[in-house]
Amino acid sequence: MRSWPTKTLALGGDYNPEQWPRPVWDEDIALMQRANISFVSLGIFSWSWLEPAKGEYEFEWLDTIMDKLHAAGIAVDLATATATPPPWLSAAHPEILPVDVDGHTLWPGSRQAWCPTSPVFRDYALALTRQLATRYHDHPGLAMWHVSNEYACHNLPCYCDECARHFRTWLRRRYERLDAVNDAWGTAFWSQRYTDWEQILPPRRSTTFNNPTHVLDYKRFSSDALLEHMRGERAVLVELSPGVPVTTNFMTLQHFRHLDYTQWTPTVDVVSTDHYIVDTLPHPRAELAFSGDLTRGLAGGAPWMLMEHSTSAVNWQPTNHAKAPGQTIRDAIAHVARGADTIGWFQWRQSRAGSEKFHSAVVPHAGADSARFREVEQLGRIAARLGELVGSRVEARVAILHDYQAIWAAEGPCMPSSELDALEAAQAIHRQLHDRGVTADVVHPGADLAAYAVVVVPQLYLVTDEHAAAVAAAARAGAQVLVTYFSGISDEHDHVRLGGYPGAFRDLLGVRVEEFFPLGPGETVALTAGAGTWWSEDVTALPGTEVVSRYAAGPLQGRPAVTRRSGGDGEGSAWYLSTLPEDAVLGTLVDDVLAAARVEPTVTGLPRGVEATRRSDGERSWLFLLNHANAELSVPGRGYDLVADTVVDGAVRLAPGGVAVLRED
Amino acid sequence: MRSWPTKTLALGGDYNPEQWPRPVWDEDIALMQRANISFVSLGIFSWSWLEPAKGEYEFEWLDTIMDKLHAAGIAVDLATATATPPPWLSAAHPEILPVDVDGHTLWPGSRQAWCPTSPVFRDYALALTRQLATRYHDHPGLAMWHVSNEYACHNLPCYCDECARHFRTWLRRRYERLDAVNDAWGTAFWSQRYTDWEQILPPRRSTTFNNPTHVLDYKRFSSDALLEHMRGERAVLVELSPGVPVTTNFMTLQHFRHLDYTQWTPTVDVVSTDHYIVDTLPHPRAELAFSGDLTRGLAGGAPWMLMEHSTSAVNWQPTNHAKAPGQTIRDAIAHVARGADTIGWFQWRQSRAGSEKFHSAVVPHAGADSARFREVEQLGRIAARLGELVGSRVEARVAILHDYQAIWAAEGPCMPSSELDALEAAQAIHRQLHDRGVTADVVHPGADLAAYAVVVVPQLYLVTDEHAAAVAAAARAGAQVLVTYFSGISDEHDHVRLGGYPGAFRDLLGVRVEEFFPLGPGETVALTAGAGTWWSEDVTALPGTEVVSRYAAGPLQGRPAVTRRSGGDGEGSAWYLSTLPEDAVLGTLVDDVLAAARVEPTVTGLPRGVEATRRSDGERSWLFLLNHANAELSVPGRGYDLVADTVVDGAVRLAPGGVAVLRED
Amino acid sequence: MRSWPTKTLALGGDYNPEQWPRPVWDEDIALMQRANISFVSLGIFSWSWLEPAKGEYEFEWLDTIMDKLHAAGIAVDLATATATPPPWLSAAHPEILPVDVDGHTLWPGSRQAWCPTSPVFRDYALALTRQLATRYHDHPGLAMWHVSNEYACHNLPCYCDECARHFRTWLRRRYERLDAVNDAWGTAFWSQRYTDWEQILPPRRSTTFNNPTHVLDYKRFSSDALLEHMRGERAVLVELSPGVPVTTNFMTLQHFRHLDYTQWTPTVDVVSTDHYIVDTLPHPRAELAFSGDLTRGLAGGAPWMLMEHSTSAVNWQPTNHAKAPGQTIRDAIAHVARGADTIGWFQWRQSRAGSEKFHSAVVPHAGADSARFREVEQLGRIAARLGELVGSRVEARVAILHDYQAIWAAEGPCMPSSELDALEAAQAIHRQLHDRGVTADVVHPGADLAAYAVVVVPQLYLVTDEHAAAVAAAARAGAQVLVTYFSGISDEHDHVRLGGYPGAFRDLLGVRVEEFFPLGPGETVALTAGAGTWWSEDVTALPGTEVVSRYAAGPLQGRPAVTRRSGGDGEGSAWYLSTLPEDAVLGTLVDDVLAAARVEPTVTGLPRGVEATRRSDGERSWLFLLNHANAELSVPGRGYDLVADTVVDGAVRLAPGGVAVLRED
Repeated sequence: MRSWPTKTLALGGDYNPEQWPRPVWDEDIALMQRANISFVSLGIFSWSWLEPAKGEYEFEWLDTIMDKLHAAGIAVDLATATATPPPWLSAAHPEILPVDVDGHTLWPGSRQAWCPTSPVFRDYALALTRQLATRYHDHPGLAMWHVSNEYACHNLPCYCDECARHFRTWLRRRYERLDAVNDAWGTAFWSQRYTDWEQILPPRRSTTFNNPTHVLDYKRFSSDALLEHMRGERAVLVELSPGVPVTTNFMTLQHFRHLDYTQWTPTVDVVSTDHYIVDTLPHPRAELAFSGDLTRGLAGGAPWMLMEHSTSAVNWQPTNHAKAPGQTIRDAIAHVARGADTIGWFQWRQSRAGSEKFHSAVVPHAGADSARFREVEQLGRIAARLGELVGSRVEARVAILHDYQAIWAAEGPCMPSSELDALEAAQAIHRQLHDRGVTADVVHPGADLAAYAVVVVPQLYLVTDEHAAAVAAAARAGAQVLVTYFSGISDEHDHVRLGGYPGAFRDLLGVRVEEFFPLGPGETVALTAGAGTWWSEDVTALPGTEVVSRYAAGPLQGRPAVTRRSGGDGEGSAWYLSTLPEDAVLGTLVDDVLAAARVEPTVTGLPRGVEATRRSDGERSWLFLLNHANAELSVPGRGYDLVADTVVDGAVRLAPGGVAVLRED
Repeated sequence: MRSWPTKTLALGGDYNPEQWPRPVWDEDIALMQRANISFVSLGIFSWSWLEPAKGEYEFEWLDTIMDKLHAAGIAVDLATATATPPPWLSAAHPEILPVDVDGHTLWPGSRQAWCPTSPVFRDYALALTRQLATRYHDHPGLAMWHVSNEYACHNLPCYCDECARHFRTWLRRRYERLDAVNDAWGTAFWSQRYTDWEQILPPRRSTTFNNPTHVLDYKRFSSDALLEHMRGERAVLVELSPGVPVTTNFMTLQHFRHLDYTQWTPTVDVVSTDHYIVDTLPHPRAELAFSGDLTRGLAGGAPWMLMEHSTSAVNWQPTNHAKAPGQTIRDAIAHVARGADTIGWFQWRQSRAGSEKFHSAVVPHAGADSARFREVEQLGRIAARLGELVGSRVEARVAILHDYQAIWAAEGPCMPSSELDALEAAQAIHRQLHDRGVTADVVHPGADLAAYAVVVVPQLYLVTDEHAAAVAAAARAGAQVLVTYFSGISDEHDHVRLGGYPGAFRDLLGVRVEEFFPLGPGETVALTAGAGTWWSEDVTALPGTEVVSRYAAGPLQGRPAVTRRSGGDGEGSAWYLSTLPEDAVLGTLVDDVLAAARVEPTVTGLPRGVEATRRSDGERSWLFLLNHANAELSVPGRGYDLVADTVVDGAVRLAPGGVAVLRED
Repeated sequence: MRSWPTKTLALGGDYNPEQWPRPVWDEDIALMQRANISFVSLGIFSWSWLEPAKGEYEFEWLDTIMDKLHAAGIAVDLATATATPPPWLSAAHPEILPVDVDGHTLWPGSRQAWCPTSPVFRDYALALTRQLATRYHDHPGLAMWHVSNEYACHNLPCYCDECARHFRTWLRRRYERLDAVNDAWGTAFWSQRYTDWEQILPPRRSTTFNNPTHVLDYKRFSSDALLEHMRGERAVLVELSPGVPVTTNFMTLQHFRHLDYTQWTPTVDVVSTDHYIVDTLPHPRAELAFSGDLTRGLAGGAPWMLMEHSTSAVNWQPTNHAKAPGQTIRDAIAHVARGADTIGWFQWRQSRAGSEKFHSAVVPHAGADSARFREVEQLGRIAARLGELVGSRVEARVAILHDYQAIWAAEGPCMPSSELDALEAAQAIHRQLHDRGVTADVVHPGADLAAYAVVVVPQLYLVTDEHAAAVAAAARAGAQVLVTYFSGISDEHDHVRLGGYPGAFRDLLGVRVEEFFPLGPGETVALTAGAGTWWSEDVTALPGTEVVSRYAAGPLQGRPAVTRRSGGDGEGSAWYLSTLPEDAVLGTLVDDVLAAARVEPTVTGLPRGVEATRRSDGERSWLFLLNHANAELSVPGRGYDLVADTVVDGAVRLAPGGVAVLRED
């Protein structure tokens, strides 16, 4: 019956009509039609308006707007409205409030003030979900269910006693025996041996560093606790509203790392995500591309849904910069270039009150008579033409491994460097590929690696034997495998693999590392060419391993810095970076790896500054070009530009900030 | 009977004799006489010495020192001693302790550890006030009552349950209906709709940003809660000690913003304030002048009382710099130049123990045989001559609007920039005026603006319709109105005024802004002349509005930056600054505005680096000159210099750091 | 029977066999023998493995490893294992958990989560100590008792109600009368007068600065509370295991200042300490030397024991740098050069799990086949030769006064500068001496100063009359006394000494200071030669006091900066530094002081960059030379180099990073 993604490249966004008097609703719908909006997410923060008292429901307003939207041909992604409980609920049941690591209760007054394991909260949330599913499952305007919202954005981890109880249950399920917990956590040290399950607590604020595996398991538990919640809501929807796709919006931003989305994808019929640009990042545009490639990886390569992004400034950064003219269009298409088939904004109409009143929207405070709204209208016309590529897939021959659990472990207490971001290498290498017009899938180590010519293993600190074996198998099968420093160090319990680093990859790489020499922020070490950053190591290249470059100064002078080893009989090889070379040197290395793998850029002759990806449906292909430079640039190409609505015969000319989507001849 | 200000320019300060053995008291009084000290504030932190147990009073020591002071001709500003409760009170009633946003109890051990709404604390405080008023109302040495001390310096806001109850009462009084609260706070968003008054809590630490209007109303409530306290003490004093003026010391420092003093002025018979120089400010001297102009504004232009400042270093900054030789005199006169008729220091004799032992005092640790004490003695001689100008008023033809409630709203959560100080524009423009020898009154938007030739509206983010109308009326009446970016944005509920910024001033200014482009710290944007800082905007100048300068680079290149529009039929006009130009450019603009308003500097030919103000009593006038430069400077003038005690015939020569007060011929 | 230090220069370290399966134990012992390890500390974090439930003990594993070690000739420093209680104990008695200043409970999950005054914890700890002493007192492998571990590293101060009760008892003992507390704390200010002992609380988070003497007394109390604990354990050991030396490992690192070790030394039979290099310090090598000189001072000049240091990186700094090749040896010998006769590492075998898995160890993750282990083996061979100097003492003719209580007071709230470290001057002067090859004892002001030619009094803010008199006596007796700014300011109650700074030393120095002019970080003031940092003062040189240098700019221009005054009849003199001159100027001044005292460097002709100390036993002497420069350097000398195992005939040639220990002819 219903399906998502839709047949068209859908534009839409969060719509919160309860903020506005009813006359505005009709104006909203007329403007949506003007801008070619084809869906809205409804009811995300409406609990207190749908159920103003326990068991008393007010659906009239929702009926009305659902009907109006449907009449206007606008599909509804209907929220279960359980993201934020109403004041009456936490007033009656303060035990649902989350507690932070210091023991502070986090009070209501903003959003998502609920404990992930609270059975009371869960009962109320499922009751509301049940009501909504019963009432709206057959509403013709209903296109999808939107469960909760940005799970874990604000209420994870919780350290309350209820979570302590659930954590013990989770541990019993994972380990069965208490001795197995003691072994996994290494409680032999610091007198931490547990002799009864009831002694186990969340890793609350202690006198100094908490046990790292305890902390890691609490992150796993916390992600699972919310996943359990998601499963609960999904079960209600599947039962009462069969055939309607279900999603919840992930947050595949660089700094959001609370949930292991790999575990979550089975619970959504469409992978959807939110993305916001963080100005203070050194490479915000590359981060957007990385996020898209990661989201596509979670979706198994299938098209996905950008549930939220912003038309212009957000309101939660220190200084919130507006987007430049044209950037609203360019950013939206940047997500499509990475596999999105749906583009949503938060939110439709800019609030005049409340916490998000200075978050930009499709209809700004200035109203529809504004450059920003006109830009959305223009995008609406472009989106109509882009409809032809819906369902097509992004081409990539490079995989970058990404594992939230490995990130969690690497972010644990007492590491060699707490100043090194766990994604530093992944994003640096991704950026080099991006700059060369080479697209990478960001995938879990458990993904099928067979199709990739290059497999990048960046700071994969914790790795299971099985995943390490899969990487080795890829090299044996002919892939170029590029492993960086601080990979393969520990197993799933975060026990260090002994005998020399990088334990899990030592044989594959043919190196043995005795000791880490991490570098602080801004610190560098000279290499035979250029300099290394963030990390260095005392590497011994085993016989048969080629030394590509060496340290040229400091305590490691003369020791290998970058090595390469044949992956087996075929053409595969395993490269090892014991440091993160500065960009130019890293780029040259990436060139060498790509050459060895015979991976070509998306477009030959791509000028630096233009981002390029390709989507194809097997028959046709579409070339996405985004000019991030301040100068007009020209890219070889031939076909039909869906953005400019013109035929291209030889070269696409891109103004500064310009975008083209070329259906290639 | 008694009155304040006195007939002389009074010197004095906080006197805490309970810190010293009685023989020191006599030495103190002898030294006070040597230094021409004419008043002391007594008993500010004496509760535990006046009432060592519930209902048991020890007044003998206070009787003695009151008598001694009176015998020596030194007036007493007697504290109600309620600023800090004694240990026995909080031990018996720990429920009076304040609670911070995280839920921490703030324990006794320093000062002011009491909850602003505690009925228990209030009962005890009023009982002590009653005792003091009964005992001393007719003491001949009593000149004034000093209620509490630096209200809100340390105990605001409190988030305890008692405050929650009082907050609900306050809300009922303000809004009457719960729906009005929901409307005002915009609870339609984030599921915050309240269905019972009891659900409302203080804006305690939540999972993320609290509702901005909730936060704003809590600031209003907190200020009002202490004001209620002040009213309670005043009522006792008015009843039992009629005819004695009552004050409490405000804190008109840049960073103290807890209380809306505009609401407080009716409760004091004399506006008094404390001021301390913060070395880490970029422009500490300008901040002192701003504070004086603000205090005068609160006093309605009348002379005011500097209750506390320091002779030299304070002890609560990271590094506490001593004052330079001569600065004790110069700083004191700087306050007189802004309208003070009384000059007090904290404190008379430097403590040898306790928290303030390294806070400078009139009598330092080194004793009276010290340069610092001799400087105060010299000031005492100057003060005797300055007595002739007591009661005179400072002349100003420029008003700068200042509203604590607008500041609170601008400091709320989730703003376009959290890095922009709410007073940035006010102080930048004030500093330009100050540098030109043009004095400004810093006044509330509800003040009478009729007398001003220039009205500056700096970052007046929140503004009521009534106040916006008053500004427009000033322009129509012929004033030059200078409005800056981020003014007129929201109404009293902090609801954004729709249709284009700056909503409340859009018609007056003839501009329409679609979007903000805030700039971070240190970020600049090129203008046709110079550069803008902190902010920029997408401005459209409506027909009839003159574009004074434009953005010259970046996303707003070519758009108007500064505009001017005729204010009506007369000579008035309304200027708009959509950015904060760097000092030189801002100075030129200020020159243009002053020229249009025909406002002349206090002295023609004033060299840069000399601060100049004028006080007059209708018949005579006194010119204050303070040389902040490192070179000797000369200012045209003719008359009698009360500082140097010499006749000036043509030019005042000011040594570096020098001061003159010229009774003008 | 047993004694410590041993006859040999003992190498050893923390050994935690419970982390490893038994087969590893045998490998451990074989490797220990290879590396000439002669002692291990055992059981430090073993409580949960020794007593898995209340009163149920598991000693079999400890018996086994004790026997194995003894059989291998490796002595055991056996811990009482009470440093960290097992989970079952805090689960049964959560009242033993410490509480921080904010009121947070600090939960178990790391280490040392116990309240210093908890009687429950104490009972359990003494019971375990009793068990261990009973079982092992006559074990032939037992060489020493190791009580608890790094007292106060993580659980001090605690602010719980139990501590409040003990604090009151401590105060009653110290002051007897409540009025004496009121006087000492200066409660006359800020209404803090106590009228009942029960009103007194720990200095918990208050509304603003806590009372400084209250805070100081709480630090004294907290140190004493743990000392009481130490005494309790020691009493059990002395009773049940007579004749076995007892120690606990101090932490004489720059930033660890919780305990007044001067009070603690009577409770240990051997002074032992831990030391870790903090990379982020500006002068980490000088800090190591300072720590050694301080530890020796605590030991009264006797040899001491380095219980813990690291072979390479630690794991608790932001970026943990590995040691350079050779540095493991050099650092170990650096401690011996300062008087250590025992060298221990934390820990023997690097953990594969838990909080310290990335802390380096003797046997790293890479195993014994590693450069780091081979370096330890090499040190083992060197240590055998160094055995001949065991028991010898370090020569020093300079004393630097150091008092934890003075540091505590100087670190109190509301000081003239909170940015100035209390050890800034001590370490700067120590570094100048160190750079010149002049060794200093860092001793308590109560130490016998008779033997010293130079006595340095650096920032001795708080000083008793008795200690001030001892300093004056030293000058009278002929010593050069060098006093810096901010010394002698307050008495034992932290009451400022009136009449002009530096009160306690005013007569000795012949200066009178009226006011401090502290300088912020990076701020400087010009002197007649060079510049001063951190501090300046308004100094008057009294008649008979020589002005050595003056301020050359700023508010103090022309005022004395450095002075000197004859100490009496003899050759002694008293120098005063009212600022901290930059290194070059300070160095010249130190040269002048040393010349006046006729103190020669350890070696004539010592090149800059080489650290030199001398140990002697009255008959023989050993010269320690450590080359910290990057170039080969040569030092005059003649004898036998125990490190290189060669005869030196005229000059020791030291490679970069090289070390020599010359038995001098």
